[in-house]
Amino acid sequence: MELFYILIVLLVVTRSCGELAKRLHQPELVGQLTGGIILGVVVNHFSGSFPILSELTDNEVFRSFTNLGIFFLMLLGGLEMHPRELGKASYKAFWIALAGLIIPLLAGAGLGWIFIPDSEWKITQVLFVGTTLAITAIPVAVKVLQDLDLLKTKLGQIIVSAALFDDIFGLILLGLLTGLLKSGEIPGAIGFSLLLLKVVAFLGIASALGQWVIPFLAKRLKKWWIEELEFTMLLLVGLGFALLAEAFGLHFILGVFLAGLFFNKRTSGTKVYEDVEGKVTAISSGFFAPLFFASIGLHLDISAIWNIPLFVVLLTLIAITTKFVGAGFAARALGMTNRESAGIGVAMSARGAVELIIAGIAMEAGLFSKPVPVPEIVENLFSAVVLMAVATTLFMPIGLRWTLGINGSKN
Amino acid sequence: MELFYILIVLLVVTRSCGELAKRLHQPELVGQLTGGIILGVVVNHFSGSFPILSELTDNEVFRSFTNLGIFFLMLLGGLEMHPRELGKASYKAFWIALAGLIIPLLAGAGLGWIFIPDSEWKITQVLFVGTTLAITAIPVAVKVLQDLDLLKTKLGQIIVSAALFDDIFGLILLGLLTGLLKSGEIPGAIGFSLLLLKVVAFLGIASALGQWVIPFLAKRLKKWWIEELEFTMLLLVGLGFALLAEAFGLHFILGVFLAGLFFNKRTSGTKVYEDVEGKVTAISSGFFAPLFFASIGLHLDISAIWNIPLFVVLLTLIAITTKFVGAGFAARALGMTNRESAGIGVAMSARGAVELIIAGIAMEAGLFSKPVPVPEIVENLFSAVVLMAVATTLFMPIGLRWTLGINGSKN
Repeated sequence: MELFYILIVLLVVTRSCGELAKRLHQPELVGQLTGGIILGVVVNHFSGSFPILSELTDNEVFRSFTNLGIFFLMLLGGLEMHPRELGKASYKAFWIALAGLIIPLLAGAGLGWIFIPDSEWKITQVLFVGTTLAITAIPVAVKVLQDLDLLKTKLGQIIVSAALFDDIFGLILLGLLTGLLKSGEIPGAIGFSLLLLKVVAFLGIASALGQWVIPFLAKRLKKWWIEELEFTMLLLVGLGFALLAEAFGLHFILGVFLAGLFFNKRTSGTKVYEDVEGKVTAISSGFFAPLFFASIGLHLDISAIWNIPLFVVLLTLIAITTKFVGAGFAARALGMTNRESAGIGVAMSARGAVELIIAGIAMEAGLFSKPVPVPEIVENLFSAVVLMAVATTLFMPIGLRWTLGINGSKN
Repeated sequence: MELFYILIVLLVVTRSCGELAKRLHQPELVGQLTGGIILGVVVNHFSGSFPILSELTDNEVFRSFTNLGIFFLMLLGGLEMHPRELGKASYKAFWIALAGLIIPLLAGAGLGWIFIPDSEWKITQVLFVGTTLAITAIPVAVKVLQDLDLLKTKLGQIIVSAALFDDIFGLILLGLLTGLLKSGEIPGAIGFSLLLLKVVAFLGIASALGQWVIPFLAKRLKKWWIEELEFTMLLLVGLGFALLAEAFGLHFILGVFLAGLFFNKRTSGTKVYEDVEGKVTAISSGFFAPLFFASIGLHLDISAIWNIPLFVVLLTLIAITTKFVGAGFAARALGMTNRESAGIGVAMSARGAVELIIAGIAMEAGLFSKPVPVPEIVENLFSAVVLMAVATTLFMPIGLRWTLGINGSKN
């Protein structure tokens, strides 16, 4: 049974590396990611001996499981948030997100402009580099904040809220990018307005459903004493909102997070909430989430280190510093303390979730094989972006603890 | 996102049909299975409108999820058993299983002998019909007994224990059948002894691991305060034993069940046991198990009803009566009451898990397209066996409640 073999190898590697990291006073996620990287290196080196494992990133079943990893992480992220607090945090979060998006975007595009040779594809490739720097990896932020017991704090709410805004902005950038990839032209004002309209419409419909329709249904269904009702309802609403987000051309992450958000102590009662939260945590931390973090590690292709080392180093440094400067200074300007501002700047720096998806879309569209003959920098762009994503994801949890002066693991 | 779409449709259909069945005082599983059947009929009729759903049984990702459904059902089955009670039950269970295997096997083979036209493939085809009648669907038995709150009773232990023996016998038959499919020859005494040796070796190794090695490891690991340790350990042992069973040429069901069996209150403490049991139940009942039951329904191909109605009716009647007579009389002869014996006879009658796998193996081996021109009975054999499997799986929970005089659902 191929599936069982994959699951057992990945669970053993990620769980043991995750726990080992904790013993070394490092975040679990760093260990799981490193485990994935090591596994990727080993199976690629001995690819003859591990035919299934070495083709794991192309394995449709495995990709389904990593998507479920993202799904459960985002569901848990939403579950552990207080909607009201999130609302309060959103003014600050909006400006933090915007500053933390524009500066990396411009810096990334600038770096691309310098390094990428002229061609009719240059603008698209430059925008690609900028976009990959603009986004923040929410699932990573959620997991790290949860591990540090910060998810329910004011700071945690602002970070997740800002990361969500970045995701929305990022999706608009992605729309632009796919427009460029397909037609070679930047979408006009109408295209842009349409994209914004979709975001607003999705948020409006999902909020109306979550606020009125679903609680109404849940109340009716509750009378029937349905077994595991709340747990199944949460899963169904999560899946439904995920599909709704995709129907509006947005990433499913957004829908799942909202679904989790509407399930809270106030609407479902403390006992039910804690029961469901425990189950989602078990499925997430104990089963699906490690698979997702391992998959980031498994994607790693280090060829860019040898071929375009300067670009890789600059890209990674710019990724970290520009988020720090953009989001951090915005937070400081909004009256937060130095330490909080620095914490926000660091917490926003992880890439590594949507990043890999964007890079995958760009690769399928052939962005890294144009123009012919392919310039070395373009040929290695995918590898460089993945390296940056992995490096920032490894840096973030370590840097955040250091910035906030938190020592040792929660456990 | 194809996966989310599949999951949401199946979860809504199976969960709502399952709960509807409960309201009608029928077992949840009957509703879930019926939901799967209805869904299969609808999407096949409008296959143009549901391209993904109508090809679901060929979908690799979906098959992984149904396998995980079997996995979690068997894990839960093992978890809810008392190993000591199971040991005590095993003497009776062995003879019940044997009688409940030989009589359906012979009757099925007899039926096949009468209906299937002569050819060099007749013996194999006849053995196939016999084998499909010989096996008992443990995951179905486990779920029904759990729903009726009978899983932890003496009767429940005997039924599951006997079903396990039937599975082991069935695997030996399957070995014989695959031998015939591959070489056209019945394996000799050496082949048989080897098969038996494998079963004994597997049970010995798994027991030694479960009794000594894993508790030793768990004790060591516990000192590290690893998060969700027990839950992950149980999953890993389940996956490991599943692979071990497959390495010995046995079905993975056997390994998973054993893994669940070694995790009990005595070894892990009541609190931990109940926490883990709650999580496995949530994942199983709330997520994976309904997918498995729906998949049985989705497999349904009713063409045999129109083409070979007499054979289908006889096959289903023989399936039910011979298990009832074989297992029931053996139980009666071993001193059980009339009601208990009848209950055992009925409980053993569900096919529908390994059945579908065997039928799938036979189809891939081309058993239903030989000889050329293909006789009508052979052409419709797959559909007939699936119909019998679905019919017995629907009959069993209803019949069991009726036999044992249980009214209304647990909930």
